[in-house]
Amino acid sequence: MTRPAIREEAAVPAFIRREQFLAAGDDPNAQVVLMGAPLDVTTSFRPGTRFGPARIRAVSDGLEEFSPVLDRELADVPFYDAGDMDLAPGRVRESLSAIEEAVAAAVGRGQLPVVLGGEHLLTLGAVRGVLRHVPDLAVIQFDAHADLRDDYLGEKLSHATVMRRVAELIGPGRLYQLGIRSGTADEFRFGSAQTNFYPLPLGGTMAELAERAAAAVGSRPVYITLDIDVVDPGFAPGTGTPEPGGVTPGQLLQAVYALSELNVVGIDLVEVCPPQDVSDVTSVLAAKIVREALLCFGAR
Amino acid sequence: MTRPAIREEAAVPAFIRREQFLAAGDDPNAQVVLMGAPLDVTTSFRPGTRFGPARIRAVSDGLEEFSPVLDRELADVPFYDAGDMDLAPGRVRESLSAIEEAVAAAVGRGQLPVVLGGEHLLTLGAVRGVLRHVPDLAVIQFDAHADLRDDYLGEKLSHATVMRRVAELIGPGRLYQLGIRSGTADEFRFGSAQTNFYPLPLGGTMAELAERAAAAVGSRPVYITLDIDVVDPGFAPGTGTPEPGGVTPGQLLQAVYALSELNVVGIDLVEVCPPQDVSDVTSVLAAKIVREALLCFGAR
Amino acid sequence: MTRPAIREEAAVPAFIRREQFLAAGDDPNAQVVLMGAPLDVTTSFRPGTRFGPARIRAVSDGLEEFSPVLDRELADVPFYDAGDMDLAPGRVRESLSAIEEAVAAAVGRGQLPVVLGGEHLLTLGAVRGVLRHVPDLAVIQFDAHADLRDDYLGEKLSHATVMRRVAELIGPGRLYQLGIRSGTADEFRFGSAQTNFYPLPLGGTMAELAERAAAAVGSRPVYITLDIDVVDPGFAPGTGTPEPGGVTPGQLLQAVYALSELNVVGIDLVEVCPPQDVSDVTSVLAAKIVREALLCFGAR
Amino acid sequence: MTRPAIREEAAVPAFIRREQFLAAGDDPNAQVVLMGAPLDVTTSFRPGTRFGPARIRAVSDGLEEFSPVLDRELADVPFYDAGDMDLAPGRVRESLSAIEEAVAAAVGRGQLPVVLGGEHLLTLGAVRGVLRHVPDLAVIQFDAHADLRDDYLGEKLSHATVMRRVAELIGPGRLYQLGIRSGTADEFRFGSAQTNFYPLPLGGTMAELAERAAAAVGSRPVYITLDIDVVDPGFAPGTGTPEPGGVTPGQLLQAVYALSELNVVGIDLVEVCPPQDVSDVTSVLAAKIVREALLCFGAR
Amino acid sequence: MTRPAIREEAAVPAFIRREQFLAAGDDPNAQVVLMGAPLDVTTSFRPGTRFGPARIRAVSDGLEEFSPVLDRELADVPFYDAGDMDLAPGRVRESLSAIEEAVAAAVGRGQLPVVLGGEHLLTLGAVRGVLRHVPDLAVIQFDAHADLRDDYLGEKLSHATVMRRVAELIGPGRLYQLGIRSGTADEFRFGSAQTNFYPLPLGGTMAELAERAAAAVGSRPVYITLDIDVVDPGFAPGTGTPEPGGVTPGQLLQAVYALSELNVVGIDLVEVCPPQDVSDVTSVLAAKIVREALLCFGAR
Amino acid sequence: MTRPAIREEAAVPAFIRREQFLAAGDDPNAQVVLMGAPLDVTTSFRPGTRFGPARIRAVSDGLEEFSPVLDRELADVPFYDAGDMDLAPGRVRESLSAIEEAVAAAVGRGQLPVVLGGEHLLTLGAVRGVLRHVPDLAVIQFDAHADLRDDYLGEKLSHATVMRRVAELIGPGRLYQLGIRSGTADEFRFGSAQTNFYPLPLGGTMAELAERAAAAVGSRPVYITLDIDVVDPGFAPGTGTPEPGGVTPGQLLQAVYALSELNVVGIDLVEVCPPQDVSDVTSVLAAKIVREALLCFGAR
Repeated sequence: MTRPAIREEAAVPAFIRREQFLAAGDDPNAQVVLMGAPLDVTTSFRPGTRFGPARIRAVSDGLEEFSPVLDRELADVPFYDAGDMDLAPGRVRESLSAIEEAVAAAVGRGQLPVVLGGEHLLTLGAVRGVLRHVPDLAVIQFDAHADLRDDYLGEKLSHATVMRRVAELIGPGRLYQLGIRSGTADEFRFGSAQTNFYPLPLGGTMAELAERAAAAVGSRPVYITLDIDVVDPGFAPGTGTPEPGGVTPGQLLQAVYALSELNVVGIDLVEVCPPQDVSDVTSVLAAKIVREALLCFGAR
Repeated sequence: MTRPAIREEAAVPAFIRREQFLAAGDDPNAQVVLMGAPLDVTTSFRPGTRFGPARIRAVSDGLEEFSPVLDRELADVPFYDAGDMDLAPGRVRESLSAIEEAVAAAVGRGQLPVVLGGEHLLTLGAVRGVLRHVPDLAVIQFDAHADLRDDYLGEKLSHATVMRRVAELIGPGRLYQLGIRSGTADEFRFGSAQTNFYPLPLGGTMAELAERAAAAVGSRPVYITLDIDVVDPGFAPGTGTPEPGGVTPGQLLQAVYALSELNVVGIDLVEVCPPQDVSDVTSVLAAKIVREALLCFGAR
Repeated sequence: MTRPAIREEAAVPAFIRREQFLAAGDDPNAQVVLMGAPLDVTTSFRPGTRFGPARIRAVSDGLEEFSPVLDRELADVPFYDAGDMDLAPGRVRESLSAIEEAVAAAVGRGQLPVVLGGEHLLTLGAVRGVLRHVPDLAVIQFDAHADLRDDYLGEKLSHATVMRRVAELIGPGRLYQLGIRSGTADEFRFGSAQTNFYPLPLGGTMAELAERAAAAVGSRPVYITLDIDVVDPGFAPGTGTPEPGGVTPGQLLQAVYALSELNVVGIDLVEVCPPQDVSDVTSVLAAKIVREALLCFGAR
Repeated sequence: MTRPAIREEAAVPAFIRREQFLAAGDDPNAQVVLMGAPLDVTTSFRPGTRFGPARIRAVSDGLEEFSPVLDRELADVPFYDAGDMDLAPGRVRESLSAIEEAVAAAVGRGQLPVVLGGEHLLTLGAVRGVLRHVPDLAVIQFDAHADLRDDYLGEKLSHATVMRRVAELIGPGRLYQLGIRSGTADEFRFGSAQTNFYPLPLGGTMAELAERAAAAVGSRPVYITLDIDVVDPGFAPGTGTPEPGGVTPGQLLQAVYALSELNVVGIDLVEVCPPQDVSDVTSVLAAKIVREALLCFGAR
Repeated sequence: MTRPAIREEAAVPAFIRREQFLAAGDDPNAQVVLMGAPLDVTTSFRPGTRFGPARIRAVSDGLEEFSPVLDRELADVPFYDAGDMDLAPGRVRESLSAIEEAVAAAVGRGQLPVVLGGEHLLTLGAVRGVLRHVPDLAVIQFDAHADLRDDYLGEKLSHATVMRRVAELIGPGRLYQLGIRSGTADEFRFGSAQTNFYPLPLGGTMAELAERAAAAVGSRPVYITLDIDVVDPGFAPGTGTPEPGGVTPGQLLQAVYALSELNVVGIDLVEVCPPQDVSDVTSVLAAKIVREALLCFGAR
Repeated sequence: MTRPAIREEAAVPAFIRREQFLAAGDDPNAQVVLMGAPLDVTTSFRPGTRFGPARIRAVSDGLEEFSPVLDRELADVPFYDAGDMDLAPGRVRESLSAIEEAVAAAVGRGQLPVVLGGEHLLTLGAVRGVLRHVPDLAVIQFDAHADLRDDYLGEKLSHATVMRRVAELIGPGRLYQLGIRSGTADEFRFGSAQTNFYPLPLGGTMAELAERAAAAVGSRPVYITLDIDVVDPGFAPGTGTPEPGGVTPGQLLQAVYALSELNVVGIDLVEVCPPQDVSDVTSVLAAKIVREALLCFGAR
């Protein structure tokens, strides 16, 4: 029996050019594993990041597989789209454990996990997962906000405290914060003292910051967390806590390219909030960043 | 010193015609107390009810204070707008306790609490608060969904289980469910067996259902919970879980009027989700229902 | 190797409660086969129906599997979601042939095809496919527009001519047009003379029209085509050619139930145009109609 | 020189099927004259009615010229689209005078003026224009709001006072107000005492109200003013002051048909506010009402 | 009586971190006074600036109180939010007088008035108010448009003429116009001859323009008026007359910092039009500019 | 008969300041002819460019006629707005022929045709039209995408293949592609080998690319095609296939100015897709580019 007119796999919104990646999808042990973590619990301002992973995949279909800048295409990077994790609404601790398990399993299999968020708190779960297999980890954070509060309205686990928790986890001097332009006075004090804190310079560029961080990290294994709000709300309105005065998409991509020689062992892209997006510009930007990250860090 | 050109109080978006109610606001012991409960944690589909109370107040300014149907105006009902409760994102149990305390305090002072949601789970906290002072309580629910699951993805406290919890709390036969048109087979079985279950009839009207419920409740004290999704999504798109095939705003208002003789001791209006709304039609409808409820049940 | 925290299948937006239907999906010979036909070429006013099938599936997740009116649930109807057909943009004839093949294959296997559109022209392809295996076919059309033009700007194949072509195909007196409220004078003349033409009565209901059509069709095999614009734009704004003055969702559902005893051999639901939708109300309505149609006509 | 591929006239968004009406447009003395009055000054809540006339014309292209209910088409009604008046922003009195002049000129030429708004205050200018040539005028108003305030924040000329001014102008007992469901207690008292005041009945229909008004008006010349907000915001969200609980488009159209025997000498349709509209449903509804009004009242 | 669970003040959308500023609000004589002037009358293109002050306050809650660039926080600047002025729709002259009174009163008390618009015409009222107490005033204008017309459609008071009126008021050579990129040939001629006219250079930056203006102004008292449309519509779509080709938010903020040593005696931020905004990006940007302006100019 | 209050021509949305251009419109042989080509057939991702010409004209009314950069105004450039071509939905070849005819007729009359799209495929028709009268033509393309596929899903005529077809038509080395940042590896290979291929440099500017192209083209006649998606989606979200990482509006305008000395014989601006636009920012940007292009290239 043949049904030539129907593409059965077409309903699967895997990442860009789906036909290909369903084939790739046959190998759950592929070099790179993409997974969605639709965590959306502690957001204090505008919720909706739970829809991020699905929307990023859906709009990725409008992009090409080929990167002219990297001169490489997705066919060169065997990867597997593991779908979204099943996170019960309102259950923070269970969700973080689930993320930790999934990421640890991938790293244990020798894969590079690329996690699509979801709110920023998921980074805590993912870093825990990486740490099970990778000691001596550095973390590079692209973000508008420091996320260094000790607690937020009394809660230790929050999108506003997540990098404080991560800093505690990986140890002093291991966190690199790039492009920060918002926080409390306390957070800026803590950042200056305890992390490698590179606020967005008024005249400088993100790529320079990334180059400095890359030089400092050296050959150490590194986890990259990218909060989409590092980009100006004019280019990325679909996020929970927009902060005017950010970088352009081009500047951010250049900063990503500046990290291309690092030993990257995990990646996430967080805080894409489709209900706040307009004409999908934020989701499409996120999809392009993920494609470039796959081609940059997955092609070993 | 006089500054006649500036209405200092104008920034306060109290409910309809603010000048008047800020004056009324001077008396926290007024007959009716309006309070916002921006709970928005367990929503499984489309979040955003946390913005409900603020938006309902903001758009209420486009309505008149006078109800032609009831021939009564807000000036006749002394009420106090207590503002919104401070509920930490992600903390369900603490939030329910806060709602319980606020409602209990109001009832203890002899006031009629009118709670603006927020997700439906808040009704559990509010009913607990009323029960501290009022035994033998009946609850009338206007809703598209039964909300009678025993648990939702393993969680006992959820917008999908709330009326099961309320039913357990007030005891058998005390819950009246009006207009239900969605649920699992289990919920419909439980509803038919354990509650006074009035599904939306294909040919009938909500007002008839309300009249039957009013007759059954009689003089017993009653709490009314109104989930805005009982109205068809064409009129109330701004809600978390839209269910096609609902009633019109006019039919719902008639059903509310049909309860006007009851001994109402608490009211809530829940599940208004402004980020999903279009042109504020859902918020304006909610504001009008609240006005009519105030004039119906607060004017004693 | 186990990865318990990741639901791999979760990325597949099959129709409602996906876990279950991916299991069902294992059997491509299931009793009912759902397929998307994202045809979007001849639309003259507002394009975008190509996104209909994907959006209807996506929002269907907010609905229950159980229908209280029919007292039946999706688990009782084995069905298979075949995904979307691959239709090249701008190629009308090839697309119609692809639809014809897919529908004919399903009918040939003894399945009930349920086609999600896409623009109304797809019905021509689908009816051709059914006719290969089923002689003596009647067609029942729910629609705001007659779609009976002989040509549209010189083109014989168009969303505005489709039912004229279908009428020619199935022969005189075999087309039942329900709820029509818009067309040229010529179309109304043709309809009155050549089809069973039931315009929307000012005071009557769709259910009455459906009952009359059902009585006239009797035991003959019947194909049902449902253009979502039969519903008023207030409830279904997401469509290409909105026509004010339509029926309510409740009235349409009642009309569908009125056909429940017919021998239905094919179904389509067309003209859902997500880019014009607001807060997904049209897509959610379409999803509910599809669920009820599956439970009504697929449960044999 | 021929340029067959270019429809030069196509850029003119005259009302429905433009080719034809540009031809009709050659005769400025046609039986009916359509004119836009984009007045948008005194709106207190949500501005934007200035865009009404242009948007109603633009979307009218999606409608047919033929009315199945009236069995008549636009080709039978010679009319001229005079375009929009040039009204300086912020200048109320000058604008009302301009409207008065334009309407008076049309009536003086024996034409039926059909004015597209714009805010409701324009009715005062239009009625003044009609009164110059037509004594003994009655006015029928379809509206959610009474618009009978004596002043609004001290201002005598406002969308909230317009029908009070009109009532003063045409004399006692000449104003028929249909479907009113909002106003102050004062307005309702004034209405009950001074106008023919037909509030929207909870159980009744607009058509009944219109029939009663038609019987009372008899053969007297009548001006019809239709505020789109008489329709429920679910169907007509694009308006300045949405008032939940209104009629359906079908009910309103039936009410218009109920006036078909009257001696109508002027018509306006006001308060369409495109920036608040969603998916153009309000503008399309307005366009259909205008078409039906042209066919009803212009075909003599 | 205690009601610990309810933050009564929460309903007040004062500017950022409201608890604190309601306390500050107790002192109407604070160093800085924030006031809203929702003037929205003469806008010729897209209205809606009346909603600007309320929306800017509402979204300000998503920002921090601390400015990393200025290393200062709002707690250091005692200020009072006086709410919105009560301006009757359609009454230009009365509204300008009210604004003048409010601003003059603040300046007379030694306060720095910060006015949130509202359309640009309000600057005329505000400058009049400042001039009552401060002679020898300079005005610095950030704007896409020159606003130097002598009249607009015959009207002398308009958003398109406002800076011509201001220039007449403060005297020759006292107006500094920064970043202008739109106007008639006449306006550019007038600007070049009569004002300090610094059009946006193709290759230069706003900060350079601001530095030049700051040097020229010296120690003279200065009023700053900031029309949000100086920013490119990509970052600030929510405005009445978008003009492509503007500056970035970062460039504008740098220009504001370049004025930090000036003797600023009044500030306004105008033309934020929330109904045209998308995902609140314009309002959030305005809120951040106001925060930086408060910290820059209010901390003496 | 005079009707001074009605601007009859006002309904015509000709390009900016309509009164003037209707006068200019009296001369169909004016130096420049503007025409709309609402082709919208082969778009594979997000349709809607058919609405581009009408929306660009409509919003152009918010712009001035004067360009400060060029120090020239529209009154200096006699032009005629020929309206939109009548292109039957779904008929690609007929539409391309119609575009070819219209453009050839204009060029034959010695006019400069400026075509508003519509999808990019229209450029093939327009270039064919120019080639009938102008040999030795060069084409300069501003675009995010190479559009150099040989076929797209088997179709030779598509928005994704259009520049390949154009390159074949005008001969080797005659196509200049500026700012390309997306394509398949094959397209980039073809571009590098067969066209003058100037990808967007990470650090460079569009103006530099345009200067290089201008130098290479020299005095040869040139057709300019401008795909709005060359601009970053943050500034131009209203397009079919948004590609993050583009230029700013200012950078694009500078690149246009860099071509001002060329012998331009035809221009198009394509891929503006209003249904995907937000707050009209893309349409306004397109209108400004068209104005600058008219002033740059039409003023001979």
